[in-house]
Amino acid sequence: MPWMKAVFEVRHKDILGRIGVLTVGGKKAETPAFVPVINPVNQVVPASEIAEMFNCNIVITNSYILFRRLRDEVRERGVHAVIGFDGIVMTDSGGYQVLQYGEVEASPVDVALFQEAIGSDIATPLDRPTGLVRRGQAVKTVEETLKNVKATMEAVGPSSRCVWSAPIQGGLYPDLVEKCVDEYRGMGFSYYCLGSPTPLMTAYKYDKLVSMISVARRRLGPVPPLHLFGAGHPMVFPIVVALGCDLFDSASYALFAAEDRYILPYGTARLDQLYSLPCSCSVCGSTTVKELRQMEKRERFRLLSLHNLNVCFQELNQVRQAIWEGRLFELLERRSRAHPALYQAFQAMLEDTQLIDLAVSQTPLSKRRGLFLYDRYSLLRPEVRRAMAWLEKFEVNKERLETAVLVNVWSTAVKEHTTLLEKINGLVNGRYELFTYGTVYGLIPYSLNNVFPYSQTTTPETLIRSLENEIYEKAARTLSKAGFKHVYVILLGRDAYPGFAKGLTNHLTQALQAEVKFVKPT
Amino acid sequence: MPWMKAVFEVRHKDILGRIGVLTVGGKKAETPAFVPVINPVNQVVPASEIAEMFNCNIVITNSYILFRRLRDEVRERGVHAVIGFDGIVMTDSGGYQVLQYGEVEASPVDVALFQEAIGSDIATPLDRPTGLVRRGQAVKTVEETLKNVKATMEAVGPSSRCVWSAPIQGGLYPDLVEKCVDEYRGMGFSYYCLGSPTPLMTAYKYDKLVSMISVARRRLGPVPPLHLFGAGHPMVFPIVVALGCDLFDSASYALFAAEDRYILPYGTARLDQLYSLPCSCSVCGSTTVKELRQMEKRERFRLLSLHNLNVCFQELNQVRQAIWEGRLFELLERRSRAHPALYQAFQAMLEDTQLIDLAVSQTPLSKRRGLFLYDRYSLLRPEVRRAMAWLEKFEVNKERLETAVLVNVWSTAVKEHTTLLEKINGLVNGRYELFTYGTVYGLIPYSLNNVFPYSQTTTPETLIRSLENEIYEKAARTLSKAGFKHVYVILLGRDAYPGFAKGLTNHLTQALQAEVKFVKPT
Repeated sequence: MPWMKAVFEVRHKDILGRIGVLTVGGKKAETPAFVPVINPVNQVVPASEIAEMFNCNIVITNSYILFRRLRDEVRERGVHAVIGFDGIVMTDSGGYQVLQYGEVEASPVDVALFQEAIGSDIATPLDRPTGLVRRGQAVKTVEETLKNVKATMEAVGPSSRCVWSAPIQGGLYPDLVEKCVDEYRGMGFSYYCLGSPTPLMTAYKYDKLVSMISVARRRLGPVPPLHLFGAGHPMVFPIVVALGCDLFDSASYALFAAEDRYILPYGTARLDQLYSLPCSCSVCGSTTVKELRQMEKRERFRLLSLHNLNVCFQELNQVRQAIWEGRLFELLERRSRAHPALYQAFQAMLEDTQLIDLAVSQTPLSKRRGLFLYDRYSLLRPEVRRAMAWLEKFEVNKERLETAVLVNVWSTAVKEHTTLLEKINGLVNGRYELFTYGTVYGLIPYSLNNVFPYSQTTTPETLIRSLENEIYEKAARTLSKAGFKHVYVILLGRDAYPGFAKGLTNHLTQALQAEVKFVKPT
Repeated sequence: MPWMKAVFEVRHKDILGRIGVLTVGGKKAETPAFVPVINPVNQVVPASEIAEMFNCNIVITNSYILFRRLRDEVRERGVHAVIGFDGIVMTDSGGYQVLQYGEVEASPVDVALFQEAIGSDIATPLDRPTGLVRRGQAVKTVEETLKNVKATMEAVGPSSRCVWSAPIQGGLYPDLVEKCVDEYRGMGFSYYCLGSPTPLMTAYKYDKLVSMISVARRRLGPVPPLHLFGAGHPMVFPIVVALGCDLFDSASYALFAAEDRYILPYGTARLDQLYSLPCSCSVCGSTTVKELRQMEKRERFRLLSLHNLNVCFQELNQVRQAIWEGRLFELLERRSRAHPALYQAFQAMLEDTQLIDLAVSQTPLSKRRGLFLYDRYSLLRPEVRRAMAWLEKFEVNKERLETAVLVNVWSTAVKEHTTLLEKINGLVNGRYELFTYGTVYGLIPYSLNNVFPYSQTTTPETLIRSLENEIYEKAARTLSKAGFKHVYVILLGRDAYPGFAKGLTNHLTQALQAEVKFVKPT
């Protein structure tokens, strides 16, 4: 092994998100992880306090500031002692600052040796962030990044005690992002970072962020851990996790606080835009918005930073809960209504069929809780696509029977299974294939009825109504392909969607070369 | 005045929700108010603790239990002393328990005099909850309720020191609900309660709940305070407030806790369905899900009740924040994705045009923050309907000019207003009417451009795309009605919706008897 490796163990998955454990040296961090950015010279909330309050085991800090302001001290005492944190400390390359302020003439090798010298756990080769630039410029940033990475890896050699991250640049140019990933393959990286999301996020181009992450994750494959640099507002955490980002750092908690901005799970508000503090964290429980407004600036900065951190970690816990119970998609449905641009990103994600195909391969076959569907976009979610695809492939009439019986009450009738079958046998002579109707999936064959998610799906009546004709047509295709000659549409009890059973019967009568009977037993 | 009145002062409004202050005797409570149900013989969290932790000034307690278990004590010491709460104490009538357990033969007059005797601040005549019953039964419950209310009001007489609430029953029969309201009108009530939501909520019939509240609120008119009995889960708070409920009690915090159920803002989870505690309240900050599971039952009951209360009060704070900033509808968009049945209720609300008309009359003309639109349902919100209606009525060509100029960049170009006009004057000879295009509203005339919400609306590109043809047609109707002979479609800078300006030009060229020019200045 050329240098130290991060070990990443996945425990639970949903869409492309996962709960996992990242091990670096002997230290562990649970993912998805929010990685707070620690300003080494001005810790508004000390890293040790963040660690304790939020059970946080990984932070990131800034090589450039360390180099400029604390060079000798950090070389001597190490980065952990200087920032006061004994978990995993990641360092960025300072590439962004080198570009911005340009005061330091640092070579990739200087930057690398400095990170090694200060004992960084996860170090970053001097990358050149692409940002939102024209293609020519983007190509240059990628070439320079790749050149720097190679120089770095040669300089640090096989005995390096850092885990080296592979910085993926290329921004909005898919082929450049792919080129980065391809170049890194085989170089022995165990930790990847995706750069340049910040300009996309500040411009609310969340849909572009989706496609950038999608390109990187698809090219990387589903396995290796992926870190998103500068993820900004916690309202993007669910979608970036769903797209396959395992870690994401952000300084927003402090940057927003410095401007008197209060983070909400669905946005931000200036202090003068708050009626009260609609939060239960320790800060909001012990002060009022009026007190906050009148407080001395430094103390307000600290308290707002703490509150903002709290929102970030709480959102992270919601994401983990969602993955674990198999409802990450439900969380996306909710969070995508935090801002129209986020909704557009959610739609873009669902229309990225290659991405969803990958998600289908990663999403568990069965889940702790059922699916909630809302509208046509919900039908594009991985489990629904997969369930639809299974039905397409399933041979519904293996025994070449001539009679199909469609009933409406599988899920509630399972407990009276025998009664149901007796009832049907009383109505239908001879052998038959049995299906359920009245779901968004189309007709569900008997043998698939208890397979997740067919009967674990909750659908609003409005969605069934808006799909009525499509569902009828699909049923007709299924039955006609299987060559049934007799079809019974049986309505047991009340029609959950009044008129649906009758409508289905009428449609099948028109569409099929078969005898179709509607039966409502009394 | 026949008996004591509640005073209700409205401070901020949005949709049919409002932030207000309810004054009863000398005591005040801010609305919308979550009114926790206090079990007088088993306070899992003492009322005094709820008051202090959550700044709660109003609770409700159960007459039936007080009567059965603490009759003499509560007559002697008063209800405030017995439950240990000095804010507003409301008592229910016990009508539900009388029906359920039937052990007490209490007349309406007994029930009323008991509530007076114990010093209830807001008392409830012995009502007969309708529930989910057939019409014949529903009629009986309403008749009995009305009879009881009359008997009560005669018995207590004009010197009563209670505020008497008017219990509205009738359930799903709109005419019965209306009959109740009509009967109470002129009887001097200052506080109304709407009964029977619980069976609707436990059956997830939130859409029926919407129509029941809608009927009551429309018949009552927008002014008087309305209390919803038994509002259940906090995820319904936003919609019931938006429909005009000012107060709502619930015992769910304790009922759920007793079954080891943990309330989330978007649902509930049994303790074994939790990965961790995704919440920042004092309980969740000081224990873990594992500790909770292993804890002694009574202590767990208490901590879960506290957590559940916290979610309720936090949701209430979010609702108040949303009303205050004018984003109650945005909150509904988010919360309606908590459950498909809630989404269906949200759609039902938007399709209730009489309700929305009332909401249009109550929603402020201008707001602290702009509108977020998501999909076609967002277009049914009150501000959008109103803004569309204004445009329909607005005479777009008062001066009978022959030339219309359509530009795409109002909102961003306001700061360079003069430059913009100079630019247009350089392109167009003579006088013209000026409009903005590229919004969901259609063409916005110059003089309306700064009127809320035309340029304070954020729309995802996907929505504009899906409405493209409708927007084009609307523009054609506007221009043709106003009789313009020359139309300039000017595209300044980049088209926010690539191809939109060209598409508009093509459509207008086809649809209008006018000369249409597309101009893209360099």
